[in-house]
Amino acid sequence: MKSLRSRRARVAVAVVTAAVVAVPVAALASASHSDNTKAAAKAIKGGKARNVILLIGDGMGDSEITIARNYQVGAAGRLSMDKLPLTGAYTTYAVQKDKPTLPDYVTDSAASGTGWATGHKTYNGAISVLPNEKPVPTILELAKKAGFRTGDVTTAELQDATPAVLGAHVVNRDCKGPAATTAKCPTNAKENGGAGSIAEQLVATKPDVLLGGGKAYFDETVTAGKYQGKTVIQQAQANDYQVVTDAAGLASASSRKPILGAFAPNNMDLEWTGPKPTLTGTAPSTCAVNSARTATQPHLVDMASKALSVLDQQTKHSKKGFFLQIEGASIDKQDHAANPCGQIGETVGLDAAVKKVLDYQKAHPDTLVVVTADHGHTSQIVETATLGYTATLTTHDGADMTISYATAPITGSQQHTGTEVRIAAGGPQAANVLGVTNQTDLFSTMARALGIR
Amino acid sequence: MKSLRSRRARVAVAVVTAAVVAVPVAALASASHSDNTKAAAKAIKGGKARNVILLIGDGMGDSEITIARNYQVGAAGRLSMDKLPLTGAYTTYAVQKDKPTLPDYVTDSAASGTGWATGHKTYNGAISVLPNEKPVPTILELAKKAGFRTGDVTTAELQDATPAVLGAHVVNRDCKGPAATTAKCPTNAKENGGAGSIAEQLVATKPDVLLGGGKAYFDETVTAGKYQGKTVIQQAQANDYQVVTDAAGLASASSRKPILGAFAPNNMDLEWTGPKPTLTGTAPSTCAVNSARTATQPHLVDMASKALSVLDQQTKHSKKGFFLQIEGASIDKQDHAANPCGQIGETVGLDAAVKKVLDYQKAHPDTLVVVTADHGHTSQIVETATLGYTATLTTHDGADMTISYATAPITGSQQHTGTEVRIAAGGPQAANVLGVTNQTDLFSTMARALGIR
Repeated sequence: MKSLRSRRARVAVAVVTAAVVAVPVAALASASHSDNTKAAAKAIKGGKARNVILLIGDGMGDSEITIARNYQVGAAGRLSMDKLPLTGAYTTYAVQKDKPTLPDYVTDSAASGTGWATGHKTYNGAISVLPNEKPVPTILELAKKAGFRTGDVTTAELQDATPAVLGAHVVNRDCKGPAATTAKCPTNAKENGGAGSIAEQLVATKPDVLLGGGKAYFDETVTAGKYQGKTVIQQAQANDYQVVTDAAGLASASSRKPILGAFAPNNMDLEWTGPKPTLTGTAPSTCAVNSARTATQPHLVDMASKALSVLDQQTKHSKKGFFLQIEGASIDKQDHAANPCGQIGETVGLDAAVKKVLDYQKAHPDTLVVVTADHGHTSQIVETATLGYTATLTTHDGADMTISYATAPITGSQQHTGTEVRIAAGGPQAANVLGVTNQTDLFSTMARALGIR
Repeated sequence: MKSLRSRRARVAVAVVTAAVVAVPVAALASASHSDNTKAAAKAIKGGKARNVILLIGDGMGDSEITIARNYQVGAAGRLSMDKLPLTGAYTTYAVQKDKPTLPDYVTDSAASGTGWATGHKTYNGAISVLPNEKPVPTILELAKKAGFRTGDVTTAELQDATPAVLGAHVVNRDCKGPAATTAKCPTNAKENGGAGSIAEQLVATKPDVLLGGGKAYFDETVTAGKYQGKTVIQQAQANDYQVVTDAAGLASASSRKPILGAFAPNNMDLEWTGPKPTLTGTAPSTCAVNSARTATQPHLVDMASKALSVLDQQTKHSKKGFFLQIEGASIDKQDHAANPCGQIGETVGLDAAVKKVLDYQKAHPDTLVVVTADHGHTSQIVETATLGYTATLTTHDGADMTISYATAPITGSQQHTGTEVRIAAGGPQAANVLGVTNQTDLFSTMARALGIR
């Protein structure tokens, strides 16, 4: 495994490897917090935002954030996502499809995504449809309609729940392409008069920037209607999209036309690899760059940068700004897989995107930035071996941190958890994340910021 | 087991039992969050506070709060502790005794208590001493010295870590009474010229109100010095303390003299009981009042009310107000014991105290109120059985919630976790809990509020 030094240098995050740098005692040992009152008062801004940028760490609960912070910058260090001025906790539960008056205390990314994207609670598996399967408009669709430019970026398949909820409405999250839609979402299928699969609906919704994985579904053939017999990629091209499939293509894409970037057949490759947890734990270890990663794939920070520059370019001379969603998707997926370095590498990758966004916000203070998760997850920082699988990592501090996964066998998928999660924000309307709110309230906050509500 | 209805009615929290009240669809289903900007701006207050009231839910991480909320008021309901206007996350790690430049990622209540009480990171087990075993002044001691009245309230033994850190300095948290101190903390033992056990030091520090369990240690005999041969209770009485041992005694205690309330030999009795988790889970169940609870013991809310009224009375005509700590201690202890109803009952008990405190603050807005935890804990809300022990509770919503404990065998003690935890505040200086802070920063915030720093 290649050392992380080069990778870390490249993405401009901490360039040290663990166990090398001694942290001064004072940093760890005593209080030095100066009075934040004035800065906090300044951070409270009402009114409208020109732009709204939402960054979702999928499954990035407080535990996942702490694990990544400890590993990457040390316990007393701060990630970029830690620097947003206003914070709160928000509840993420779904509701039961057959009885939507009852909560389902552990949400999936589809129900939670529908929550923040539409303001409505729904059932696990629903993509921006209500429990009665009726579609409901999303923040991206409403923003577009009101004249804002829009973007949707992820490290997962673009048809995966989080990016999907912004521009598609299907009754089952599995209906990513035409084939699955015919099988599992007949009411949504094109041949039955529906709006089609998530892939088809996304390109029909037509965000200006659509970047991630999931090329396999865009390569499927449309079953009926105007584009019957064409692939979804061809449908997109017929509707003005430039299609790019690697980092070089992304870099050279023009801002004069919408961009569909599909950089992997399914999810994009992981940033890091490392030890696999076992029932008795592992020797202390560090993470390494995933050498199996496809070199031509852009990193999340690359996609975020391009999205920012394109949307900025497109709105420079217009009255309205943009709405942009950026997802670090595989935090969740590697938590499911009980892969600590996988999970941390993706969190650090998202944090690099957060830094880019905060830099943009500095130059454009009329931008609301929100960083949050869609649900909590399984990983916990513990003292010793547990009933589950543990691995020990030597962190940036040079100390050992043991991480436990104990909600499923290692051969299965670890579970989401129902805990409230952190939401952090800065910019106009950011005060609406303070205290304890509901995930659906984030829709109202963003809509109010854009003046579309 | 007795129904909770009477208990709930008595402590004036929700009087419904689970599965009885249907929650309207709207409450669960869609966003209704109005603009919080003005209220948030109003909540940001600098300057000094007349009073500081700190409520600690021991082990009350975001997961524990969510579990209690779901059970007691429903997923869309709000606990009193959810209503504080300003919130943040804070990091709780300890440091290694032999190498204090290195963090210990999972703290105990002693190190974390020393953190918020003194502003200094220390090792697990330390009671307001630095890694070099030297004592360091606490917020309560500094407040008292500056002319504030002080109080320290818990449902645990008063010698337990959280209440102990405010008024004692020993190298090992086990040194609760003279006997253990002779054995385990010889440098602190009275016969060796030390300041004595936690019990002796607490009454010597002499907070105006000292309420909780731990009578067994107060009944031990002092080994040397002025009070040699006397019990710690007698030492306290010689120093003007009224000693009370039951709810009736507490109710009639005078505010003209300091009050030592020792209501149980060790920890106070639990509020609730319920199903024991198993490896395969349990049938859906509800919690019940702990009928084995000693009827003469006051509840936490009773102790909090008395502390508030006594301290208010004592400071009515003086320039300085008071510092008061109130701990819900057995949230942690019942999380260790994998006892969901035990844990929830104690959280609900703390929340009743939070309500009392918020009512006091309403009438005395120059009061800083902080509600937080000392560390995260093991319990997680999950979908199905895990590798650990699960129990399913039917909540206030009438839906089933499954809780998992998987960091230790059921015969052992579940582990703390190293996650950042929620801190919530209102009143002067409360803006200093926003964002991501270190547990030691809470000391600075409280000290600044009292003007003693």
